[in-house]
Amino acid sequence: MVDSTTQEIDEILDKAVDAFHQYKTYSLKQRADFMRTIALEITALGDELINTAASETNLPAPRLIGERARTIFQLNSYAEATEAGNWMNVSIDTADPARTPPKPDTRKTCVPLGPVVVFGASNFPFAYSTAGGDTACAFGAGCPVIAKAHPAHFKTSSLMAEAIFKAARKCNMPNGVFAHVRGASFEVGSYLAGHPQVKAIGFTGSFSGGKALFDLANRRSVPIPVFAEMGSINPVFLLPEKLMNEADSLAKQLASSVTLGMGQFCTNPGLIIAVDSEPLDRFLYQLKKEIEVLAPSKMLHEGIESNYEQKLAQALNQKGVQIIASSAGLSKLMIATATAQTFLKNPILHQEVFGPYALVIQCTNKEEMLSIAKALEGQLTTTLMATVADIKTHGELLNAIQEICGRLIFNNVPTGVEVSLSMHHGGPFPASTDSRFGAVGADGIKRFARPICYQNCEDELLPDELKNHNPLQIFRTVNNVLTKDVILN
Amino acid sequence: MVDSTTQEIDEILDKAVDAFHQYKTYSLKQRADFMRTIALEITALGDELINTAASETNLPAPRLIGERARTIFQLNSYAEATEAGNWMNVSIDTADPARTPPKPDTRKTCVPLGPVVVFGASNFPFAYSTAGGDTACAFGAGCPVIAKAHPAHFKTSSLMAEAIFKAARKCNMPNGVFAHVRGASFEVGSYLAGHPQVKAIGFTGSFSGGKALFDLANRRSVPIPVFAEMGSINPVFLLPEKLMNEADSLAKQLASSVTLGMGQFCTNPGLIIAVDSEPLDRFLYQLKKEIEVLAPSKMLHEGIESNYEQKLAQALNQKGVQIIASSAGLSKLMIATATAQTFLKNPILHQEVFGPYALVIQCTNKEEMLSIAKALEGQLTTTLMATVADIKTHGELLNAIQEICGRLIFNNVPTGVEVSLSMHHGGPFPASTDSRFGAVGADGIKRFARPICYQNCEDELLPDELKNHNPLQIFRTVNNVLTKDVILN
Repeated sequence: MVDSTTQEIDEILDKAVDAFHQYKTYSLKQRADFMRTIALEITALGDELINTAASETNLPAPRLIGERARTIFQLNSYAEATEAGNWMNVSIDTADPARTPPKPDTRKTCVPLGPVVVFGASNFPFAYSTAGGDTACAFGAGCPVIAKAHPAHFKTSSLMAEAIFKAARKCNMPNGVFAHVRGASFEVGSYLAGHPQVKAIGFTGSFSGGKALFDLANRRSVPIPVFAEMGSINPVFLLPEKLMNEADSLAKQLASSVTLGMGQFCTNPGLIIAVDSEPLDRFLYQLKKEIEVLAPSKMLHEGIESNYEQKLAQALNQKGVQIIASSAGLSKLMIATATAQTFLKNPILHQEVFGPYALVIQCTNKEEMLSIAKALEGQLTTTLMATVADIKTHGELLNAIQEICGRLIFNNVPTGVEVSLSMHHGGPFPASTDSRFGAVGADGIKRFARPICYQNCEDELLPDELKNHNPLQIFRTVNNVLTKDVILN
Repeated sequence: MVDSTTQEIDEILDKAVDAFHQYKTYSLKQRADFMRTIALEITALGDELINTAASETNLPAPRLIGERARTIFQLNSYAEATEAGNWMNVSIDTADPARTPPKPDTRKTCVPLGPVVVFGASNFPFAYSTAGGDTACAFGAGCPVIAKAHPAHFKTSSLMAEAIFKAARKCNMPNGVFAHVRGASFEVGSYLAGHPQVKAIGFTGSFSGGKALFDLANRRSVPIPVFAEMGSINPVFLLPEKLMNEADSLAKQLASSVTLGMGQFCTNPGLIIAVDSEPLDRFLYQLKKEIEVLAPSKMLHEGIESNYEQKLAQALNQKGVQIIASSAGLSKLMIATATAQTFLKNPILHQEVFGPYALVIQCTNKEEMLSIAKALEGQLTTTLMATVADIKTHGELLNAIQEICGRLIFNNVPTGVEVSLSMHHGGPFPASTDSRFGAVGADGIKRFARPICYQNCEDELLPDELKNHNPLQIFRTVNNVLTKDVILN
């Protein structure tokens, strides 16, 4: 794979701008049909897609088959949401010429931002890459997409790009509605982020990568939004009654979640917090047993593997950190412990170690557990393993963890992100660069659109969603009332 | 007025954080009642408020009385929207344990960001200052507010602050839910923008001020959102049939809009674009007549006045710019003309001249008019004075101007911003720092909140808006259907 040149990128962006002026005028139904056709073309790639991805990522076929299903579900369900139109947040206030001063007719909808660059993730070659969630959201909003292939799975990305190109031709989409850019170097990414014709960025990956794009985008003469989902350590708090009742089962659940897919999920539980007690000892004993019988597998690619080894070594070398469990063989699955004071004093221990590793924090009391919660950075998820009685006696803790996370999970593991409208996959910085938007679920469409108000516009000139007779039959807030009713002249 | 010290600001922020942890738990009704009580306390300030503001701002009493009514309307209508709860975008997907894998219960609502700093505007001492739109939105979202008084109307700001303090006491709000900070220097603003306990900023004012805050906020170790509304030149396009039919009336409307309140509105029409023609000559002749009989009045304060004179002199000194009309006396009301080529080649002419000035661009043809539209930066508003036939023959122009503005006005002047849910007061950069949000209308509440998803949470522990029996009786999207229905177990 050779990086795309700046000249190639300039040409791609010129075409994307031309495509944008056409694509944004396409109806919601046309956009949705395009998204559904992409899903069909992905299915049509058949085994070749799975085999290619398996060879590039070391991910097992069943996992990839599941991820493909998820990717197809995303495209179809976001297509449905695109058509339902709630994401446009349409509101209308009709004129009142009798008022002093006369009240004008004002109608608000959303328009797409323009060409969007999507940076594929290494750990989700389908669902967060070329034809993944960010791409689906941008197409739904009416934006062309320039996908920057992840160099670790370029062939997979190329197959996905081919599926999108085919769907675009079948649906008579404008030339340039999608483009596929090659780039292993930082230069390609930074050239894209600084390009005047790029209007927004979607990114899933490391903190350093996402933050670099965020900084570049904000230093442009015309800044653009960057939606970077940068992972986190996803703390899990084990509260006393729950731990007493279910120490063994919690250990089993967490051993499985920490090691799932070799820990290569941004929702991997990297921190487990509990108060020292006999049930915690039981939990640790069981966790050790679970981990020791598991066999590690290969990680996604060599870069990730060496990064894991380096970060893991750094974490384990910190004063006060003790290994309590590691898998046989390559010794890659790893659990360590530290006291709350050790953790609170050492910012290195707050950093993500991307891989099958978790640190268990042993607190001397409830107050120390609360101090941990207050000391944590923004997180994608925080989990409470707790009975109702536990939660009632830990009100301050519940309050504190709501401040730091985008998803608060009760008695479930954080891995496994449901794709639905009510999911929120994002969180306060540094989990993501914009805590007000998320990367999973159809509300993600809103990232790539902005409001526009039409004042005193003739009905025939309005976009369909604003016309009096509500031809799209969508929900609209008319004079402060949410309704599907038509507006009578 | 002496600037608040950094020590005072630290203490204010400590209190604001304490207040935040309480205030965010207050019900929507409690927040709304607080907002309504502020409105009552503003009314109770009576003539003192009007007289104080008149002496500090040179604004005439009728204008101030109107602005006070608008401020009260904002507080009351945003209170209503706060309670209606649509801004929280609540969505719920119920569990399906029978699915493989089991589908968890997920419920999404919004939580407030934390303490918000509001920088008051010089040109709206009530509606965009201490108790203005940003403050109302932040209170609605559940955030404490630290208002940085504008030094040009500190006494007015102090009266408003007193009204808010009184309302806070009457409504038993937590100590620290509101604070009033004095600051004439850049240091106070930058200290606030960099303060780790500040979680968002609302700003209305100049590009240089807003952009400086934006840059400071993005360079923090934990960046925060800045919603800066920074004004624009609000282009008005006069299309040929409309101009032919109504040259005189258009000149009257625009002369009035350009000079309204001495041009001190961010929606002031600073640029008028038309194709050279006999009707344009008529329009210019009438515009000159209108302007010459008007008498200028004092501007808001000396700083604004000297800034206007400087910017005006700079604009008028550009090659190819010709004065065609100026008012008698101080000669402050001013209309100039330039050709399209002059405008296209000179970026200085694209800059806002905050005051009663407009530049008329004379184009040789329709294509030049389109080039102007494509060359413009982001704008709060763009106006089309046009018949339906005009618009149908200027499709490309309509397309181009939708790309650059937050509000597209047909056959109305841009001054006068209606306060309603369907209003959008914002626009692509540099009109505002975040084109996805606006500063007028209750949707502005969304700026100060972020989504959070509760997964697998017991009903009794959920916030009211997410509980099965829908105690707030708000609209929610339940399993993809928008409804007020309760959820049956």
